[in-house]
Amino acid sequence: MTNTHHMAEDTTIKKRIVQYISSLQQQIITALETTDGKARFHTDKWTRPEGGGGVTCVLEQGNVFEKAGVNISAVEGTLPASMKEVLNVKGDHFFATGLSLVLHPLNPFVPTVHANWRYFELYDGNANVIDSWFGGGTDLTPYYIFPEDGRHFHTTLKNVLDEFDADFYPVFKKQCDEYFINKHRGNEARGIGGIFYDYLRPEANRDAEWLFRFQQANGNAFLLSYLPLVEKRATLPFSGQHKEWQEFRRGRYAEFNLVHDRGTLFGLKTNGRTESILMSLPPTVRWKYDFHPQPGSREAELEEYLKPRNWIE
Amino acid sequence: MTNTHHMAEDTTIKKRIVQYISSLQQQIITALETTDGKARFHTDKWTRPEGGGGVTCVLEQGNVFEKAGVNISAVEGTLPASMKEVLNVKGDHFFATGLSLVLHPLNPFVPTVHANWRYFELYDGNANVIDSWFGGGTDLTPYYIFPEDGRHFHTTLKNVLDEFDADFYPVFKKQCDEYFINKHRGNEARGIGGIFYDYLRPEANRDAEWLFRFQQANGNAFLLSYLPLVEKRATLPFSGQHKEWQEFRRGRYAEFNLVHDRGTLFGLKTNGRTESILMSLPPTVRWKYDFHPQPGSREAELEEYLKPRNWIE
Repeated sequence: MTNTHHMAEDTTIKKRIVQYISSLQQQIITALETTDGKARFHTDKWTRPEGGGGVTCVLEQGNVFEKAGVNISAVEGTLPASMKEVLNVKGDHFFATGLSLVLHPLNPFVPTVHANWRYFELYDGNANVIDSWFGGGTDLTPYYIFPEDGRHFHTTLKNVLDEFDADFYPVFKKQCDEYFINKHRGNEARGIGGIFYDYLRPEANRDAEWLFRFQQANGNAFLLSYLPLVEKRATLPFSGQHKEWQEFRRGRYAEFNLVHDRGTLFGLKTNGRTESILMSLPPTVRWKYDFHPQPGSREAELEEYLKPRNWIE
Repeated sequence: MTNTHHMAEDTTIKKRIVQYISSLQQQIITALETTDGKARFHTDKWTRPEGGGGVTCVLEQGNVFEKAGVNISAVEGTLPASMKEVLNVKGDHFFATGLSLVLHPLNPFVPTVHANWRYFELYDGNANVIDSWFGGGTDLTPYYIFPEDGRHFHTTLKNVLDEFDADFYPVFKKQCDEYFINKHRGNEARGIGGIFYDYLRPEANRDAEWLFRFQQANGNAFLLSYLPLVEKRATLPFSGQHKEWQEFRRGRYAEFNLVHDRGTLFGLKTNGRTESILMSLPPTVRWKYDFHPQPGSREAELEEYLKPRNWIE
């Protein structure tokens, strides 16, 4: 769009959010490379003809991570009619920035994790901000259940939310449980959930600065919620059967992302950067016909946990 | 529905089509088991609460076929509003029968193949047939190109069509090229095509019997179009790198089926039998970030062939 410079001056919080997203990407990448100890992130900077661009960082075939994507983007332009409808908003021009990550560990005892934090602005014809909101969330997809791992993950997220509003965790946890569902698999959950929030708009008692602090607190807590699980489980010995189970369950992950995930489908159908969008897909996947694990096995136990439950006493 | 018996008496061609579909399934299964020489098909009969059912036959971990699904179904019921819209038809009740198959070979030099033949009837409130049509097609997805294999496949299909109408092959080949496209991958074709036809309705000079003979000719030609390629390529030695390339390309197959294929999405979103629908997904799949084969390699050559081309002469 032609009035980018004008908008940037109007909205200093936008600039600071973009800077935060970029520094968060660096922080996460550095920590993951240290944890992995072998592979390094490959960085692709890309630009979008319509305005803006992103930085896609992917690590593959590591010691700990078989595939890890940590992507940021900051794009602006004219809002497509289809997106206006999906978002249920008005406004001619938009700005959107965010960080998306999906980490697929090598060891089946380490859970897969996904997180996303985003910020959106809409403008009228004079480049005045007429709407803005924050969204985000983190969710965990284990292949084997360690109840204490689920408790650690959910407790870490809850503690962050509780500092801001004691009502947040129950609401955002429920939204997460309701979103990451494979409807075509009898409403099986993708994993054990986490939190998911969207359309957090500035209000009288929660202005944009408050929401930005909230967003930063969530982003900053990610490594604390997840890395301890990696440290505890990444060195557990595993067999080919454990790996097959992980690859079979990864099939469900691919199904959710390709059939149901709004962000993925929106990106693919609006000419987004396909390789950046599909970095979320697992490195290796198996599909078997009508496969069910042995009753009573640890694999069968997982299915019981793929229903929303209270992870914190 | 309550008037099934009445309808069956009205439409003897329906009965004969169901019988043909069932015998075609047996014929194909027998031939594939002979070709495989090791694994056998597992058979699941299922019924649908709303009426009808099917027989899902899947072979896994064979000598030749890593995963092969050959499914038939014959279902009836009230047409959902959403389906009426998709089909652009009128009518309160429907009957649909068909055979769907997807064969994923173990050896990367043997192409994956998909075929489907179907028949549809619509009824008014008095169970009179007010509309009916045939549809079907066959398409090939190789991982390595052998031009003579593509020529054999397309020529076999063309010869069948030419016996019925010399205009069919160019039209149905084009429809196939236009359908099996990954739009989100820069309009890359899923494979090297084949033929695809739909809404072939009885007309004065092509009555239902003529169309039924046409459908049978197509179904009967399937093994002739495909098995010679298996015989020629299934014993070629292959390396881990060839297998990885196959698994990487299978990712594109999964993407097409889960993101674009109308039949798959319709089935998943209308509470179809998920395991029967998703038998089409490959047994093992890889997704790598932004992977491109070495320029000049046989793998790179494939991409040139994933654009519609003339496969005959």
